[in-house]
Amino acid sequence: MTRLFNDPATFTEDMLAGFLDANSGYVAGVPGGVVRARETPPGKVAVVVGGGSGHYPAFCGVVGRGFADGAVVGNIFTSPSAQEAYTVAKAAAGDAGVLILSGNYAGDVLNFTSAAQRLTAEGTAARVLFVTDDLASAPAAELDRRRGVAGDFVVFRVAGAAAEAGYDLDAVEKVARRANDCTRTLGVAFSGCTLPGAQTPLFTVPDRRMGVGLGIHGEPGVSEAALPSAADLAAQLVDGVLAERPANCAGRIAVVLNGLGATKYEELFVLWATVSKLLAERGLTVVEPEVGELVTSLDMAGVSLTVTFLDEELESLWRAPADTPAYRKGLVGLAQEEGGSRLRSQAVQDDAPVEVAQVPHATPASRHAAAAVVAALNSMRTALTRSAEELGRIDAVAGDGDHGRGMVKGVTAAVEAATSRAEHGAGVATVLTAAGDAWAAKAGGTSGALWGAGLRAAGERLTDVVPTITAQDVSDAVRCGLDTIVTIGKAALGDKTLLDAALPFADVLEAAIGRGTDLRSAWNEAATAAHTAALATADLVPKTGRARPLAARSVGTPDAGAVSYALCVQSVLSTRTKEQVG
Amino acid sequence: MTRLFNDPATFTEDMLAGFLDANSGYVAGVPGGVVRARETPPGKVAVVVGGGSGHYPAFCGVVGRGFADGAVVGNIFTSPSAQEAYTVAKAAAGDAGVLILSGNYAGDVLNFTSAAQRLTAEGTAARVLFVTDDLASAPAAELDRRRGVAGDFVVFRVAGAAAEAGYDLDAVEKVARRANDCTRTLGVAFSGCTLPGAQTPLFTVPDRRMGVGLGIHGEPGVSEAALPSAADLAAQLVDGVLAERPANCAGRIAVVLNGLGATKYEELFVLWATVSKLLAERGLTVVEPEVGELVTSLDMAGVSLTVTFLDEELESLWRAPADTPAYRKGLVGLAQEEGGSRLRSQAVQDDAPVEVAQVPHATPASRHAAAAVVAALNSMRTALTRSAEELGRIDAVAGDGDHGRGMVKGVTAAVEAATSRAEHGAGVATVLTAAGDAWAAKAGGTSGALWGAGLRAAGERLTDVVPTITAQDVSDAVRCGLDTIVTIGKAALGDKTLLDAALPFADVLEAAIGRGTDLRSAWNEAATAAHTAALATADLVPKTGRARPLAARSVGTPDAGAVSYALCVQSVLSTRTKEQVG
Repeated sequence: MTRLFNDPATFTEDMLAGFLDANSGYVAGVPGGVVRARETPPGKVAVVVGGGSGHYPAFCGVVGRGFADGAVVGNIFTSPSAQEAYTVAKAAAGDAGVLILSGNYAGDVLNFTSAAQRLTAEGTAARVLFVTDDLASAPAAELDRRRGVAGDFVVFRVAGAAAEAGYDLDAVEKVARRANDCTRTLGVAFSGCTLPGAQTPLFTVPDRRMGVGLGIHGEPGVSEAALPSAADLAAQLVDGVLAERPANCAGRIAVVLNGLGATKYEELFVLWATVSKLLAERGLTVVEPEVGELVTSLDMAGVSLTVTFLDEELESLWRAPADTPAYRKGLVGLAQEEGGSRLRSQAVQDDAPVEVAQVPHATPASRHAAAAVVAALNSMRTALTRSAEELGRIDAVAGDGDHGRGMVKGVTAAVEAATSRAEHGAGVATVLTAAGDAWAAKAGGTSGALWGAGLRAAGERLTDVVPTITAQDVSDAVRCGLDTIVTIGKAALGDKTLLDAALPFADVLEAAIGRGTDLRSAWNEAATAAHTAALATADLVPKTGRARPLAARSVGTPDAGAVSYALCVQSVLSTRTKEQVG
Repeated sequence: MTRLFNDPATFTEDMLAGFLDANSGYVAGVPGGVVRARETPPGKVAVVVGGGSGHYPAFCGVVGRGFADGAVVGNIFTSPSAQEAYTVAKAAAGDAGVLILSGNYAGDVLNFTSAAQRLTAEGTAARVLFVTDDLASAPAAELDRRRGVAGDFVVFRVAGAAAEAGYDLDAVEKVARRANDCTRTLGVAFSGCTLPGAQTPLFTVPDRRMGVGLGIHGEPGVSEAALPSAADLAAQLVDGVLAERPANCAGRIAVVLNGLGATKYEELFVLWATVSKLLAERGLTVVEPEVGELVTSLDMAGVSLTVTFLDEELESLWRAPADTPAYRKGLVGLAQEEGGSRLRSQAVQDDAPVEVAQVPHATPASRHAAAAVVAALNSMRTALTRSAEELGRIDAVAGDGDHGRGMVKGVTAAVEAATSRAEHGAGVATVLTAAGDAWAAKAGGTSGALWGAGLRAAGERLTDVVPTITAQDVSDAVRCGLDTIVTIGKAALGDKTLLDAALPFADVLEAAIGRGTDLRSAWNEAATAAHTAALATADLVPKTGRARPLAARSVGTPDAGAVSYALCVQSVLSTRTKEQVG
């Protein structure tokens, strides 16, 4: 379990501070992650990698020559926000564009795509690539639904080496995509890991059993089997990854035998002795294998085997020199001894803080509604904080257990942003959009992106200068927020997502207001419907997807996103605004 | 726990096979360990490090340029044998001598010293150095009784860098001794580790507690405390290691914040953030800190902080380039791209196998006694195999829990060596000396060295050509073996060692035979005395020492070595030789 921390809430920040201090010759901190200590030289494509933390040395540990130019570092097992990805990529980018890579998880896809769009709009060419190496997470016919696990390491490495070799952005992206196409991973878990401050592991594996097809965020395996001998496990892993050996495979492969954290090097070497023999028996030549802890999951016990079927170009990139805090090979020098590029002249700054004093003029009605929004967000924060652990527990059944923490991070940031605007006389549109932006920036993950965009859209439906705000306006704003969530999240009713609570809520709210019910009663009726619908998601067979390849196991448990949505809209009913108090 | 293995008995061999395969560009296997893939060039001192395994990357992982020339690899947590240390050092040595380093443990001291003596006798200058960095294992006034823990890494590194820089043997030894004098470590443990195939960990730490002053072989801490926050733990560790800051310390230090296996990098970085701040507040400048897993203990959870107070020379050696499987820094190339020294032309071979057909001539009486020895060794093997787990459990109370496994390894090798000689008509002297040599070579550890030397000495007391062997001859041989054990082991009656069973055994045997009792009855009487004496060691307050700094906690538990000695002499009574059967 994870025992050493100060405040669990600042674990990632504290970890980053120590990492940067210990590796100051290699890396510098920027808001949202790290970049190389030296600026990206003119003409060089920047390669930015990232995702949630808890996977060291993935991925801040591989920022350096021959590998990444920057790493976006989210909270433990949680996608960084779009804002964080944007800040890191912007700091890393030189004049030749940036390729942003992560594993294929819904939150990362949403947020990294959004960051790339913002960079592109600003004139910096930016692409994204999401790694899909995990065999266990979807069938071969649905490659793009597979998640990224230890294969991330190989694909990121190929992209980094290509950029170092002077490839242009098109060429870096092309060769990285080919590396992803040629990479397969199969993993097993023997025990789960425990988040800092949590009392129980994200999942458990019975003694002398193993979970087959583990994820790297505490997601349990797709099936369970008796713990085999090392030799038998080697055979299972080799059979698994070679099942999708391409017909045109030249017979040379890069291999990563990865330890998840508590399965140690001694055990990995015992396993490797048989893996190596079996690969040779299949006529394959292993090129510079990596046997070690490269993509971990805190102290989870488990291993994964990754194979990349190489062509000549991929092989030369795999073998290229690298010099990073955690991964060094070939003829390279210490980062601080480089002469080619400049040391960063100063710490990169976050976006300038909003001048809250300069909020747009607002009518009394809009300011009144803004105060109600602040009060509602405070109620949501109280409710979510109280239920964070339970939400995490529900989420861990099929996912990574981060839902409760992410929601609390998001709503807390939203409360702060909204409060500071409202105190300066902002109207409801300004307050809601600021709350949404702050939520998305701080929470990360899929839910952070969706709630942030939803609140922003709701705010944009309203204005700061209306003479009055009606119940219909509120209902319309809820619907606008929901439409945006549907558009971004690409889910539908019945997919076992927050929509299964949110859509009934919006429908009932609209209908009640249409019948002339007052807002408070209508909201009460709608919240009750959302609550019922959220609990009913327990019966749903979810659509599995990038974020939740194992969601099928959640049958019998309600969806964490739907439950937290219902919780939020219910909590608003206990809100007392100043007017109501007065 | 350690879950991946094939046969627990071959875990170390299987691990080494995988390690060598994965790192063939760096290292080659030799009997007893590994050496660099390229020969030691003329004029370069060879630095050989070693000890038991289970500590990866310590120490086979640091064989390469700027670090070690060879590593002796014992079984898990068990000293390699003198034979293994000799073979590796001989393979590593060029023409400029060899420095052999290990942590300060009785088994390593015995066996590595013996190997160095043999090399010196053969004309290869050889020195030994035993690292004593662990603050918790003895007071400052008794530095030479302290054991070596993560400080091994710094001292070995300084020696390796000095040898690479062209220092001669005197100079390498001198600077390595200064590095040891300037190095202090304090560690804590949060959970124990489990040997491959074992059902229970070597020790446990209660939930939310920590053992202070842990060993790296599963030895529990010297005291227990509540698990603190990372910041509070940082303060405890910094206070601990700086308590012995030398008066003339220039203010520059090398630092290793070491994870024991299951305490992961994220946690180490959180801890490092505070450690770094506190060291700076004390006016100390940290030079190229290492924060990571460098000297592990399988999957034990825990951390240690090592500080080396640097002078200019130590600093330049600490910063020097290195290129090894697990530790690389500075401007270096891949080992396989080196041009300076030659690739080893062939695998280094073990000592030539004994031509058992050419055993010395033996009289019928000596051959008859040889058969009795073979039968007795077989009985001992049966008894030790049955009791191996229990012996390990007793040993783990204050030590590293390897006693049972070591005894089984040793007696099994002794049976094989004795049987092959006896089958070729060897006499009792030849059979006993061969059995002793095989025991010492295969068992490793302190007990392996003592049992091996004892059997050899007993054999040397007898001869292959005597007309008869009397009960007095047997008693004399037992006494000769025991005298050798006393000389080598430097222990006395009451120190809670195997002598507490062996000395009463020899005394009673001599007295009974002096009274004219027949051998079998006398042996029976002596074995009973040994058994009683062995159990009585539970009441002894042991002399703590290098091997057992924590032995005080064994009060109430008998000594494992005494128990196994009694077991061995008792088992002989159930022996049926061919003559008795016939």
